Amino acid sequence: MSVTAAKGFTAAGIAAGIKQNGNPDLALVVNTGPRRAAAGVFTSNRVKAAPVLWSEQVLKGGEVSAVILNSGGANACTGPKGFQDTHATAEKVAEVLEGHSAGEVAVASTGLIGVLLPMDKLLPGIEQAAAELSPHGGEKAAIAIKTTDTVHKTSVVTKDGWTVGGMAKGAGMLAPGLATMLVVLTTDADLDAATLDKALRDATRQTFDRVDSDGCMSTNDTVLLLASGASELVPEYGEFAEAVRTVCDDLARQLIGDAEGASKDIRIEVVGAASEDDAVEVGRSIARNNLLKCAIHGEDPNWGRVLSAIGTTKAAFDPDRLNVAINGVWVCRNGSVGEDRDLVDMRYREVRITADLAAGATEPVVIWANDLTADYVHENSAYSS
Amino acid sequence: MSVTAAKGFTAAGIAAGIKQNGNPDLALVVNTGPRRAAAGVFTSNRVKAAPVLWSEQVLKGGEVSAVILNSGGANACTGPKGFQDTHATAEKVAEVLEGHSAGEVAVASTGLIGVLLPMDKLLPGIEQAAAELSPHGGEKAAIAIKTTDTVHKTSVVTKDGWTVGGMAKGAGMLAPGLATMLVVLTTDADLDAATLDKALRDATRQTFDRVDSDGCMSTNDTVLLLASGASELVPEYGEFAEAVRTVCDDLARQLIGDAEGASKDIRIEVVGAASEDDAVEVGRSIARNNLLKCAIHGEDPNWGRVLSAIGTTKAAFDPDRLNVAINGVWVCRNGSVGEDRDLVDMRYREVRITADLAAGATEPVVIWANDLTADYVHENSAYSS
Repeated sequence: MSVTAAKGFTAAGIAAGIKQNGNPDLALVVNTGPRRAAAGVFTSNRVKAAPVLWSEQVLKGGEVSAVILNSGGANACTGPKGFQDTHATAEKVAEVLEGHSAGEVAVASTGLIGVLLPMDKLLPGIEQAAAELSPHGGEKAAIAIKTTDTVHKTSVVTKDGWTVGGMAKGAGMLAPGLATMLVVLTTDADLDAATLDKALRDATRQTFDRVDSDGCMSTNDTVLLLASGASELVPEYGEFAEAVRTVCDDLARQLIGDAEGASKDIRIEVVGAASEDDAVEVGRSIARNNLLKCAIHGEDPNWGRVLSAIGTTKAAFDPDRLNVAINGVWVCRNGSVGEDRDLVDMRYREVRITADLAAGATEPVVIWANDLTADYVHENSAYSS
Repeated sequence: MSVTAAKGFTAAGIAAGIKQNGNPDLALVVNTGPRRAAAGVFTSNRVKAAPVLWSEQVLKGGEVSAVILNSGGANACTGPKGFQDTHATAEKVAEVLEGHSAGEVAVASTGLIGVLLPMDKLLPGIEQAAAELSPHGGEKAAIAIKTTDTVHKTSVVTKDGWTVGGMAKGAGMLAPGLATMLVVLTTDADLDAATLDKALRDATRQTFDRVDSDGCMSTNDTVLLLASGASELVPEYGEFAEAVRTVCDDLARQLIGDAEGASKDIRIEVVGAASEDDAVEVGRSIARNNLLKCAIHGEDPNWGRVLSAIGTTKAAFDPDRLNVAINGVWVCRNGSVGEDRDLVDMRYREVRITADLAAGATEPVVIWANDLTADYVHENSAYSS
């Protein structure tokens, strides 16, 4: 059900011909109201794709009536012509939907950087997508935004009379701030833009921003939350924020589970940190260590590489007090050899690393990562050719 | 000739049985004087191996009479027992050489983290190495410090009556500050410890610290410079520093050329930066981008990944003014599509990336990196098992 699980939304997903293989590549999500409040979070990469620059401006108004998303091309590093194309895309959506303004149409793109979009295919595709809009179109929309994703990703939480649902794409270039992803969340709760913004930022900080598949940050990351108000209910903030976070967490976990070429999902939990910032820094450093990622791929509980990664951070810790567990076995105690590494069972896809900094009592922080595999190398050495 | 090219040094390399495969694994370098001045640079990883902790203390005295180096075990994350073993190693060297003090014996180790060294093999090995010390032993010493290195690495510069020579090991865990490496440089110039220290720091900053094979920083990096004064010559500082830098640059280049599993050496030149710090930050970010490293492996001039990496830095630049050349072809101009990417010839091992930030007139900075390959994954997923 994805983006159409909440009342007040229609969606469509079609094949416009942007992808040369004929797969679906264009999704349209429309907020049918009565309210059109919205919030957005975008990549922190300073090289931003044209649709990100456009949508950032749109979101400043706090209202989004429609989101148009394409796969098959990122429209990043495409200069003034790329921005004109994004603008023309929003104009076309406003035109076919009638009664809408281009300034309330968010645009998102994903695919190869540095290539202009085939507007002769995209613009007619918008007409086709508009004609197919349906309150049951969420699944098709989720399918149309896939790139190297092997599965489409959706999630829904329903509470007393109101719903938060969403869709996501992303399988590579997944790193904090944000992971490479397009995400559209919808709700029929009756909330204003400021409340949506707070709930969305709180949620992404603890979910998408803690996913690090390959250390690479995209130019196109976009996470949108649209509220239709169609339930006519105003949930209590804490309950709403929790629902948004649950959906984001579920989608983030699906992104890691489908990461390019990965054979393991690595759950890195940092405990005993002096601060949340320290815990996040340490978790990310472990998540990005190529040698460790290779070791996990080989089912080798090589805890020395965990310590080596911790040692590159500025976090508070004493090297002689560090403890590391892999799948529950404390292979490193007090910075030195701990329990027998042969006790570690690494046969399953999920691998749990616990890093205890023994430096404080901060709540545990979890970062998700993937292993590094020959398949990852293969997929990414041939992507643009 | 490596460490024995300069007068006033003897060396040996033997198989002590630390490596299970019987390959050479223990090297001894002795400064026969008349002077014993020395300087050292060590890993900036906060998790430091026992021999690093020991040698840092030794170097504070500014005098080193001998260096004992072993492969086959890093003696890192080995707790108090590991430090006792390093101490016992230095004591043994002092004992067999006679007239030396353990406080002037530097120790360096390389190999797997988290395993104690077999002292029952290492200590007798020191006696054997001492018995084989020779003014022609430099080559054997260089061979004995290899781990996954496929070749041993040496370099020599001879000037008017004085010489700087050295040996290096390192094939993985190569990242700035420093790369994983053990390096011993020797000179017969008659210089004091302070002068050696300045020349060594200037050289490492611009050479070993600008090598980034896989983004991983070791616990054991050690670079030592020993002066015997045996030439009885005091070179002018600039000329001496230049000779040290030339040897370091040559050895650093050899490390990249022999990096684990690599099929390409990537020379990243950052020009037009507002400051040297900006240029280094941008160069390192490009060097560590796994997606780009995969693309280079696939001979795909995927410049979008270069821009995406630049965009994650804090360096001064305007995204719309960035230019990128790959092997001399300016595939990205003003942040957008430039010359035809099909013009880029990437068949050869060396690939040159030029990133022009168009933000200043800082001298170009060069960072060396490697591609990411299935062979790298394979080597590092099975290292400790």
